Amino acid sequence: MPDTNVTSTERLDDTALDRLFRRARTANAWQDRPVTDETLRQLYDLVSLGPTSANQLPGRFVFVRSPEGREKLLQAVSAGNLEKTRTAPVTAVIAYDPQFYEQLPRLFPHADAKSWFTGKPEFAERSALVNSTLQAAYLILAARSLGLDAGPMGGFDAKKTDELFLAESGWKSTMLINLGYGDHSKTFDRLPRLGFNEAAVLA
Amino acid sequence: MPDTNVTSTERLDDTALDRLFRRARTANAWQDRPVTDETLRQLYDLVSLGPTSANQLPGRFVFVRSPEGREKLLQAVSAGNLEKTRTAPVTAVIAYDPQFYEQLPRLFPHADAKSWFTGKPEFAERSALVNSTLQAAYLILAARSLGLDAGPMGGFDAKKTDELFLAESGWKSTMLINLGYGDHSKTFDRLPRLGFNEAAVLA
Repeated sequence: MPDTNVTSTERLDDTALDRLFRRARTANAWQDRPVTDETLRQLYDLVSLGPTSANQLPGRFVFVRSPEGREKLLQAVSAGNLEKTRTAPVTAVIAYDPQFYEQLPRLFPHADAKSWFTGKPEFAERSALVNSTLQAAYLILAARSLGLDAGPMGGFDAKKTDELFLAESGWKSTMLINLGYGDHSKTFDRLPRLGFNEAAVLA
Repeated sequence: MPDTNVTSTERLDDTALDRLFRRARTANAWQDRPVTDETLRQLYDLVSLGPTSANQLPGRFVFVRSPEGREKLLQAVSAGNLEKTRTAPVTAVIAYDPQFYEQLPRLFPHADAKSWFTGKPEFAERSALVNSTLQAAYLILAARSLGLDAGPMGGFDAKKTDELFLAESGWKSTMLINLGYGDHSKTFDRLPRLGFNEAAVLA
């Protein structure tokens, strides 16, 4: 059925492009300003709308914001990420559900997509990794859209994080993303980028 | 050095949130309206600003928009994706450079990040896959920010695509993303999403 309830063809204004990309920066320090659970729910709602292959939505999100949760998480964080994670209002553990395909009869009802993954654990895990990583990027930009700053981190012990937070669910962690309102007096200069001709080709 | 040239703390307005997430949709058909090379350069510039781990920027992008390029690409596209790819103004081949770490002395000059990856091809490839996938999601949302519609696709022959487009560079393709101005009379109804309590935990 066609759905005409969509927008396109107009670019966002400069304020929005600045906030999303051009002036947005990874936060290393935080204002003393909380992030409410209501904001985290709004964040999740935006993230869930981003596209994934066959709507598989493998991403799972543990929003750590209690003192007990944070103490636990700090056991798994690399030395260089400790202080910014200790002081962040929220840290999102980005994970995927290796059994994501069990939901596909509901999420992608017009084909037997579950059968594409059943009994193929390596194929399913790669798909879950890739598509949950798309969702991690949606979370970074959705956070910026909601006025938050994000601090994505790869430096943590995924196995330990899984033991501490995901033993029951069987989810697998892939990345941490600190969330809060950044203290931009502590933001570093932007690092160089590759030019168009170094990373792109017109064919 | 602190960089105070950043914005935050204000959420985007409803028009922007709609265009990025709430009303944005994967396009399956296209208006007869070209995407200029200048727009592709603007798109790349936004994508390049999104964060990657240790600024490794492993993503590489082949923007296929010539008739010859398109004919070549169609040899590698799954049957179900043929028509929308044949008619798309541009298809971006998302790839990564397995040797991305050779650029790190320039991109991440304050540590010897190149040595973290040298001689560890499996670790380097996983990092390149994950971080170029973040960049693929930045591309989807940057396209929407510029008024374009995106149509990401996993259904293609990556090995054949690498042979046809990436034999010289040694880059590895991971995903295709059609780009253009969508014909939303052909957009399907939005598929269901997982609720907060199905995919998220507060800890």
